Amino acid sequence: MSVDIAAPRGFERAEFEARTHAAQAAMAAEGLGALLLTTEPEVRYFTGYLTRFWESPSRSWFLVLPARGAPIAVIPSIGAALMAQTWISDIRTWPAPRPKDDGVSLLAETLREVGGPVGVPMGYEAHLRMPLGDYVRVQAASGLEFRGDAGIVAALRAIKSEAEIDKIRAACAIATRAYARMGEIAGEGVPLSTVFRGFQRLLLEEGADWVPYISGAAAQGGYDDVISPASDMPLALGDVMMLDTGAVRDGYFCDFDRNFAIGAPSAEVQVAHARLIEATEVGLAAARPGARACDVFAAMAQIAGGGETAGRLGHGLGMQLTEGLSLTAQDESVLQPGMVITLEPGTEVSPGQNLGKIMVHEENIVIREGGAERLTQFSGPEIVVL
Amino acid sequence: MSVDIAAPRGFERAEFEARTHAAQAAMAAEGLGALLLTTEPEVRYFTGYLTRFWESPSRSWFLVLPARGAPIAVIPSIGAALMAQTWISDIRTWPAPRPKDDGVSLLAETLREVGGPVGVPMGYEAHLRMPLGDYVRVQAASGLEFRGDAGIVAALRAIKSEAEIDKIRAACAIATRAYARMGEIAGEGVPLSTVFRGFQRLLLEEGADWVPYISGAAAQGGYDDVISPASDMPLALGDVMMLDTGAVRDGYFCDFDRNFAIGAPSAEVQVAHARLIEATEVGLAAARPGARACDVFAAMAQIAGGGETAGRLGHGLGMQLTEGLSLTAQDESVLQPGMVITLEPGTEVSPGQNLGKIMVHEENIVIREGGAERLTQFSGPEIVVL
Repeated sequence: MSVDIAAPRGFERAEFEARTHAAQAAMAAEGLGALLLTTEPEVRYFTGYLTRFWESPSRSWFLVLPARGAPIAVIPSIGAALMAQTWISDIRTWPAPRPKDDGVSLLAETLREVGGPVGVPMGYEAHLRMPLGDYVRVQAASGLEFRGDAGIVAALRAIKSEAEIDKIRAACAIATRAYARMGEIAGEGVPLSTVFRGFQRLLLEEGADWVPYISGAAAQGGYDDVISPASDMPLALGDVMMLDTGAVRDGYFCDFDRNFAIGAPSAEVQVAHARLIEATEVGLAAARPGARACDVFAAMAQIAGGGETAGRLGHGLGMQLTEGLSLTAQDESVLQPGMVITLEPGTEVSPGQNLGKIMVHEENIVIREGGAERLTQFSGPEIVVL
Repeated sequence: MSVDIAAPRGFERAEFEARTHAAQAAMAAEGLGALLLTTEPEVRYFTGYLTRFWESPSRSWFLVLPARGAPIAVIPSIGAALMAQTWISDIRTWPAPRPKDDGVSLLAETLREVGGPVGVPMGYEAHLRMPLGDYVRVQAASGLEFRGDAGIVAALRAIKSEAEIDKIRAACAIATRAYARMGEIAGEGVPLSTVFRGFQRLLLEEGADWVPYISGAAAQGGYDDVISPASDMPLALGDVMMLDTGAVRDGYFCDFDRNFAIGAPSAEVQVAHARLIEATEVGLAAARPGARACDVFAAMAQIAGGGETAGRLGHGLGMQLTEGLSLTAQDESVLQPGMVITLEPGTEVSPGQNLGKIMVHEENIVIREGGAERLTQFSGPEIVVL
């Protein structure tokens, strides 16, 4: 057990100020008077407000980013004490939940004071975390124009600061140590559901604050589905087991997986694993500033197979398990230094034989001026045998 | 370690059919031609589709409930195999994420086929889990009228079936066993952050599938905030430590807490704890069919103190950590058999002395014809000493 309690938590105030100023510069260019933010990562990005209390859907939380000055928190009173520990000083509260006016008038008044037009993230991956009925009421009560945020928040969040990269690196190190201990919890005869529980335990022991996501699969000579819950079926000789995790430390995710052979792997499995590692290395080499997401996709798909229908072979990563660009044939986003992404090739174990057996592999990297830097300790071509 | 692997998972098909028929009866009364559902609990309620993959915000998932017949899943192709294991047979997919048309045309076409008006949950606690821009596009492309769902889905979900109650009871039993082992992980000198990790580990060992929520606090003679992340401050003699969890088994939550004294508790802490337990028992007695949420609130607040400003002294519970009614002074929801709620009084440790020290306590119950049934093993008046 080696928890990284030495690694610093949170961010310097200057980082939040820089994020705010960057947003305000973009708002000015778009003619926006305010941003209205409602989701956990959006609010946290500009404030540092970190709590698992968002798990409860019962209360709405709002952050208003004005054209100038610091953000204004419009939040349930239960969150005031914790918000006061951040750099935010203008904190306006109401006793939520309050059925007749659940923050609507307070938010509308704040927006009127700040002035519009009000930009709201409403593009790809953006959600409105408040009742739609209340949103319509706020629009009416404010009398302001509401429109999309022109992708301002997503674009800012896509480029990570060095402090953010350090947090993702720390999360990756935690999962690396947990994967290295797989032999303690997995092997022939152990139900996959027990492995899932044990893996979460290892991640916590190695320093994860919590484990929002794990997935995996195990089946003879490869698997077919990577999003199902674990069954109670015991692992058997000849199984290939894959475990994937999004573990969190200080609010930032890692997201990568590892494959394990239960007993000696078949030649096909060995070759497929080596192909995945090769595809990952090719992806790493292709992931340079100026390359497009679809270029990295194409480089990996050429090795791993599947062509245009290969799906999503990686994605952005940070305060959410997946965020930002997708390594697909359609995504023309241009890679920039500071972007943290996953490389996640998938391959048929026996290409062309259509047996429905696949394997997937995943690593995490950050785009740098000179080329990508590894955030995970990449797997070698040989699959680990348990 | 005693994982309940014997308890059955999932639900009989008849339960999903009954939920669907109940929704359709309410839809007919409201003149709705379809319901459009986008969130994890809503989709799971009608399908049984259970996966942690929702942690990724990158893909939208839709369920269309027609006026007659089974629901139609309109989902990313990556989810097709798992959805096919549910009772849903009409599964329509697109290769998400697809920037130019991320399910919009497929969903609009499905809605046109089913017919409107389309009801969308947009009241208290309801979120729209899709980009707002895509929602507007679907509305336009379908040519149908969209309106609120008249609270149909929330009202159905509020009344639990016996199978649902069994799942919540199983989650409660897991947490009860984990709390009983607190002496293994907590005590003088242990940092609270280490206790948080250890408690999650115990919950997993005792059978939780995952632990979406824990919170807690520890301070001398009581605490002041119950939603902050754990600090690395070691527990000290005289601290009162509270731990709260929403642990999940088979997709259903428990949500209750326990207080622990680090070393001998003061007389004030002992009295405050006993007062919380008394308030909880009074709440249990008041929680009868026909009583309103505000009546149960008032009964508890009379013992625990705080009056109208005491906040929320409990809430509904089920597929989400908090859902449905609130035990507040304003909530006039009428308790009905089958509702599962928490009783969660809070009290000042030294009433009237305004020292900012509070304690909270929480238990879970189900409303029955003859009165409420305990789902947790209620704490006695004496605080547990570690």
